[in-house]
Amino acid sequence: MRRSAFFLPTLKETPKEAEIVSHRLMLRAGMVRQASAGIYSWLPLGFRVLKKIEQVVREEQDRMGCQEVLMPTIQSADLWRESGRYDAYGPEMLRIKDRHERDMLYGPTNEELITNIFAHSVRSYRDLPKLLYHIQWKFRDEVRPRFGVMRGREFLMKDAYSFDLDFEAARLSYNKFFVAYLRTFARLGLQAIPMEADTGPIGGNLSHEFIILADTGESQVFCDRDFLDVDVLGREIDYADPDEVGSVVDYFTKLYARTDEKHEQAVFEKEVPDVRRYEGRGIEVGHIFYFGSKYSEPLGARVATPEGDEVAVHMGSYGIGVSRLAGGIIEASHDDAGIIWPDAVAPFDVGLINLKPGDSDCARAGEDAYAALARSGLDVLYDERDERAGAKFAEMDLIGLPWQLTIGPRGVKAGSVELKRRASGEKEELSLEAAINKIAANNTTVSRG
Amino acid sequence: MRRSAFFLPTLKETPKEAEIVSHRLMLRAGMVRQASAGIYSWLPLGFRVLKKIEQVVREEQDRMGCQEVLMPTIQSADLWRESGRYDAYGPEMLRIKDRHERDMLYGPTNEELITNIFAHSVRSYRDLPKLLYHIQWKFRDEVRPRFGVMRGREFLMKDAYSFDLDFEAARLSYNKFFVAYLRTFARLGLQAIPMEADTGPIGGNLSHEFIILADTGESQVFCDRDFLDVDVLGREIDYADPDEVGSVVDYFTKLYARTDEKHEQAVFEKEVPDVRRYEGRGIEVGHIFYFGSKYSEPLGARVATPEGDEVAVHMGSYGIGVSRLAGGIIEASHDDAGIIWPDAVAPFDVGLINLKPGDSDCARAGEDAYAALARSGLDVLYDERDERAGAKFAEMDLIGLPWQLTIGPRGVKAGSVELKRRASGEKEELSLEAAINKIAANNTTVSRG
Repeated sequence: MRRSAFFLPTLKETPKEAEIVSHRLMLRAGMVRQASAGIYSWLPLGFRVLKKIEQVVREEQDRMGCQEVLMPTIQSADLWRESGRYDAYGPEMLRIKDRHERDMLYGPTNEELITNIFAHSVRSYRDLPKLLYHIQWKFRDEVRPRFGVMRGREFLMKDAYSFDLDFEAARLSYNKFFVAYLRTFARLGLQAIPMEADTGPIGGNLSHEFIILADTGESQVFCDRDFLDVDVLGREIDYADPDEVGSVVDYFTKLYARTDEKHEQAVFEKEVPDVRRYEGRGIEVGHIFYFGSKYSEPLGARVATPEGDEVAVHMGSYGIGVSRLAGGIIEASHDDAGIIWPDAVAPFDVGLINLKPGDSDCARAGEDAYAALARSGLDVLYDERDERAGAKFAEMDLIGLPWQLTIGPRGVKAGSVELKRRASGEKEELSLEAAINKIAANNTTVSRG
Repeated sequence: MRRSAFFLPTLKETPKEAEIVSHRLMLRAGMVRQASAGIYSWLPLGFRVLKKIEQVVREEQDRMGCQEVLMPTIQSADLWRESGRYDAYGPEMLRIKDRHERDMLYGPTNEELITNIFAHSVRSYRDLPKLLYHIQWKFRDEVRPRFGVMRGREFLMKDAYSFDLDFEAARLSYNKFFVAYLRTFARLGLQAIPMEADTGPIGGNLSHEFIILADTGESQVFCDRDFLDVDVLGREIDYADPDEVGSVVDYFTKLYARTDEKHEQAVFEKEVPDVRRYEGRGIEVGHIFYFGSKYSEPLGARVATPEGDEVAVHMGSYGIGVSRLAGGIIEASHDDAGIIWPDAVAPFDVGLINLKPGDSDCARAGEDAYAALARSGLDVLYDERDERAGAKFAEMDLIGLPWQLTIGPRGVKAGSVELKRRASGEKEELSLEAAINKIAANNTTVSRG
C-alpha cells in the first residue's frame, strides 16, 4: 500500500477526551474515530489490526474443535423472558421496540439464543459435546463509556458456548477453552494470566478471568513468576487427550495469581518464594465460565442419555473481547513515540520510508524495494510522499509497524538500506536482500501458532 | 471435518413458512435458523458460505483500490437530522433511545457516517479520490419480512462510498465499481446483468442495478444474449487506465437490458436481433449510484481545489447484498434434490461418503482418502457415520457440495472410488489419486479470480 493513497488520517494533537494511552494512540494513529459516545468507526489501519486479532482468535477456536456460527445482533425479548434475564438485566441492555411494538434488544451476550438453537437441533447424547462460537458485535449501554475501545458500548466479542452431558464432560470442555485462551493470548504477543474469578450462586471453581499484563492496566496483579516463563506455544496440544489438556490447566491453576480484589499478602508470601513474586498491572481480556443447567433448564435444552433418560445439558460460556484487545495490546506495548505492534497483529509487516522520493535514484530504489518486499509475501506500507524525513519517521513510530526500512541517497550509493526494529530501536545498514531475509525469517517464527 | 462432529441440523420436513426455494433449502440444509421474524442465525454450513461470498466481494473491492473500514451498527440520529433523512426515512428505520434518552438508530445504510468521517479527515484535492467500503450488518424493519435471507430485517451488506473532486473523476470511480461488480458476480458463479435504474431527483444516467439470472427470480428480465456470452474474468482489468475501465462499461451499457418495469417490447425488438433476444427471471443483488453533493453539502465534506477554492466533493455509493446473495445463489443454482453450490462459495470442496464405515477395509480406505484430500489442500466433509447409504447420498445432494467421493466395499477391492459431480450428476470410477487430481485441477481454474 502506498502511503499517498492510504486513508490514514493521523492527528497531530492529542485529543483531550482520551484519558488512557491506548485511546490517545488509536485516535492519533488514525485507527478509529468516535461515531458517538462509546461507539467507534474503525479506519483502515485499525481495521487491519482488528481483523488480525479476530483471525488469531478464530484459528485457536477452530483448532480446539469449536465450530463457528453467527447469531444476529438484534434478538427478541421473548427468550430473555424465558431465562428470566430480561427483567434482571439492568439499563445496560439496549431495549428496542420494532415497528410492530414488539420488544427486541441488542444482544449483550448470547446464552439464550444459542441454547434455543441447540434445544431445537440436538436430542441425543450421541451428538455431544457441541462447542460453538461466534464473533459478533455486542452492545452494552454503559452509563459513562470511556477509555476508547477498552470500554465502549458497541464492541466486538468472541463468545463460545459448550454443551455436555454431565459435569465431567463439561469440565473437559472448560479445560479445552482454558488452554485455547492461553495459546490465543500468547500468539497475540501478550502475557496472559488466568485468575480464579467469582462464580456467583452456582459455586465451584470453574470460572477464570484472563488478565494481560500492561503497566497502565486497571487492576493490580499478584502472581507467581512461573506464569511468565512458560512457553505456551512451545508444544502442540492434543485436544483429544483429556489428560494432556488437564495437565496444562492443573499447572496454571496451582500457581498463585490474584488481582487486588482477592489478593492476600500473607498467602502470596507463603505460597510463592520471594524471587518468584511478581507484582504488576493488568487488563481483563477473557472470561470463561461453567454454569451447569442455568439456561438449559428454563430453555428446554435436554438430551436423551445412554440409559434412555432425559437430562438438561451442562453448559459453559467463554468470552474474548476482540475489539477491547486492540486497545489492550497497545496498553501492553507502546513507548513515548507511539504503538509497538507485536508481529502477529501488526497492520503491515514493514514500513518502507523513502527519504528523497524526488531523486530519481532513490525513487527507483524505493520502487524496487517495494516490489521485492511484496514478492516475499510481506505486507508493506510505502511512504513515498514528498514530506520531511522527520515527519515520516515520527509517523512510522506512531503507527508502530514492527520494521522500518529506509531508503536514502547515501544508502543507494552504498547499495544498502537501513533496517530498524521498532520495539528495540536497533538499526543496521545492510543489503535489501539481507533485510528482507531478516524480516521474513522473523515472521516465520511468529506464525508458528 | 467429520460429519459425526459437524453441527449440521438438517430437517426432514419442508418448513411450511418458507415460500421460496432458497428459503426452504437453507432451512432444510441446516444453514440458517430463524431467530425472530426476518432475523437469522447462521449455522456452520451457512456461515461458511457467507464467509466465502464476503471474501470474494472483499477481494474484488481491494483489487479495484477500495479500502476497507468498519463503521458501527448503532448510529446517532444527529447526523441523519443534518442530512434531512431522519424524518424522511420511514418506519423501516429501527429507531432506538439509549439509557440517556438520546435518539439512536440501527444503520440501514451509511452515507451520513462515512461523509462525516471524510469531512473530518480530508481537506485537499491531493488526497482524492478516496474509495472506502465496509461489510457490516444493517437493519431495515420490513413490515412483512419473508423469503428468508432474501428479504430479512437484519442483513449483511457491503457498502462502498466514493469521494471525488468533480464529476469526471466521480464517473471514473463509478466505472471502477461497475467493472468490479461484474467481476465479483462472475467469480461467484453468477450471470449478472447491469440494468439502468432510476436516479431520483438527481437525474443523469449513473445508477445501475445488478440483476442475477435465476428461474425463480422476482423480476422478468429482457436482455441481449451478448451479456451472457462475455467472459468477464477472461482478461485482467487495469483499474489505473480510465479508458480500459470505460470501455468495459460502454460495452455493457449499450446493450439492451431492462426489467419488466421498464421493458419496451418495440425497442427490444428494434435494438436486438431475434436470435440474441433473451428473456428470463432475475434477482437484484447490487446497486451502484452517483449522487453528487447530496450528502457532502449538508455534512460539510469540502476540499480545497488546485485553484485554492473550496468545493463539496462528488460522491457515489455502491452496495452488494452479501447475505442476500447466499439465497440468490441457491435460487440460481439448485435442483429437486437440493442446492448446487458454485465451486467458489461451496462450504466444503468435497463430500466424502463411506458406505460401510463398520467394515475395516472401508474404514481404512475412508481415513486414507480423508487424509489425502486434506493434504491436497481440499476442504472435506467426511460422512463416516453409521447411516443408510441412501440417507447419506440424499444429504450430500441436499447440501450441494460440488463433488461427492464415495468409498464402498466393491471399490475398495478394485482400488477405485466413485467421483460424482453434483451439478451434472456425472459419475465415474477412478483411482483416489486421479479423483483428487481432477478436483484440484478444477479448483485451480475456479480461483483465477
